Amino acid sequence: MKWISDSNILIVGLGLMGGSYAKALKRLGFRVTAISRRWETIDYAMENGIIDYGSAETDEKLIGEADAVIFALYPEVFKQWIRDNQHLLKSGALLTDVTGVKKCIVYDIQEMLRPDLEFIAAHPMAGREVYGVENSDDRIFHPANYIVTPTDRNTESAIEWCKSLGRVLGFRKVSVLSPEEHDEMIGFLSQLTHCIAVSLMTCSDNRHLVYYTGDSFRDLTRIARINDEMWSELFLLNREDLLKQMDIFIEEFRELRDLLAAGDREGMREKMRISTERRAYFDI
Amino acid sequence: MKWISDSNILIVGLGLMGGSYAKALKRLGFRVTAISRRWETIDYAMENGIIDYGSAETDEKLIGEADAVIFALYPEVFKQWIRDNQHLLKSGALLTDVTGVKKCIVYDIQEMLRPDLEFIAAHPMAGREVYGVENSDDRIFHPANYIVTPTDRNTESAIEWCKSLGRVLGFRKVSVLSPEEHDEMIGFLSQLTHCIAVSLMTCSDNRHLVYYTGDSFRDLTRIARINDEMWSELFLLNREDLLKQMDIFIEEFRELRDLLAAGDREGMREKMRISTERRAYFDI
Repeated sequence: MKWISDSNILIVGLGLMGGSYAKALKRLGFRVTAISRRWETIDYAMENGIIDYGSAETDEKLIGEADAVIFALYPEVFKQWIRDNQHLLKSGALLTDVTGVKKCIVYDIQEMLRPDLEFIAAHPMAGREVYGVENSDDRIFHPANYIVTPTDRNTESAIEWCKSLGRVLGFRKVSVLSPEEHDEMIGFLSQLTHCIAVSLMTCSDNRHLVYYTGDSFRDLTRIARINDEMWSELFLLNREDLLKQMDIFIEEFRELRDLLAAGDREGMREKMRISTERRAYFDI
Repeated sequence: MKWISDSNILIVGLGLMGGSYAKALKRLGFRVTAISRRWETIDYAMENGIIDYGSAETDEKLIGEADAVIFALYPEVFKQWIRDNQHLLKSGALLTDVTGVKKCIVYDIQEMLRPDLEFIAAHPMAGREVYGVENSDDRIFHPANYIVTPTDRNTESAIEWCKSLGRVLGFRKVSVLSPEEHDEMIGFLSQLTHCIAVSLMTCSDNRHLVYYTGDSFRDLTRIARINDEMWSELFLLNREDLLKQMDIFIEEFRELRDLLAAGDREGMREKMRISTERRAYFDI
């Protein structure tokens, strides 16, 4: 499938991310439809020109017309949707997603999928601390990364199509990783950092400290406002990788603690020098 | 001492912080002098109008003229300066500082000080990840907090004078805490967060991940670029408080880890809800 503007693109799950995809794709001239749980969501999106058409029911015509489908659902809901509705999809349709974990979803979906359909997974590493189609905004893609995670079941043309999708959506950088590499990376960069932020807030009822708080604390805990439904599911779906990263972090943090307890200033300075040197690479 | 513009204010230690004080005070019309280790610093500051006059030597006249002295030195250097030079200070001079830890310095200085001098400690919670008078900038005070940390040796008038200093420098908020309260607060809000950021960077050589890095990781590690000389000293000077905070954090982080390992989704969600609720208080 080429990126031609008479393509029908169906978005399943019209929240913050699905809505942001819809806005970007509508602007590019595609016909964008959507299926979402609530009619309020569909009505809002149609009234505001975010989609051309949509339904909160299993609209067989709408599903059957789609040349490409973007799934913006929680992982378990996504699998269930495929089980229940894949028979309605047009032969040759391309499927992609926005799921934040990959190993646990990509192989299962590909395994159960009809042979005349193809699922090429992707993770748009964009987000906001707010939810819902009302807050959708495709500008969140511009500073962000888009990762395509193919397996050996995927065709070159589907991989290329998915990379193009990342580009037309306006992502800063489009990369390709295996589902395994992706989940290890996301366990460290995203999930571990959220665990740290949450733990820092739950340490103690430190609300009285709000008047003394500087940028450091605010920066480290910005992501401590967290969608508990979504993130607890993502953590569990990436449990092994995340546990490994948490254990490495605990060990490293404890080493610094023990250097401090021992009064080993040179040992602490060495850690700080390594930290400073490595952090410099991230200022790009 | 009133804040009258013919006061002579001496800054001892003309780095980022001392220089920023100098710029703000000069603009307000005070006569600002400085003592610093290197002539290059003094020359630069005089050429650029940051100070009126300065010296890299023990200039007895300059020291003897000061109505107020602001010490922007490392804690141990500060104590040594008082031992060596306090006999040169004018009777009735007011002394303050910018040191980031308080218990370990305030009592020692007050103990050794001549009875006709008064030291009222303060902590301007401002900073940048760069150093030196060349980078000084008094705009860093505007979003920041200024904490005065008196003891029962301090007079009401000196405490008021020190609070006024915070206000005229342009700090967003001026507060008063005991040295003990200050060190506990700073152990949690500032030192613990720096320990976390450093540990996150030293966990592994993760430079290859730079292309996938989103805002969360960048925010959490911004302060991982750290002045190892200064921060290792500050950590050691606040060792007991910081160790306590580190141990509480390890315990809390491990609890979240164990919930994940046990697959206890509801337990994780409860932590996330507490975290979200508490973090909301910090969005002011």
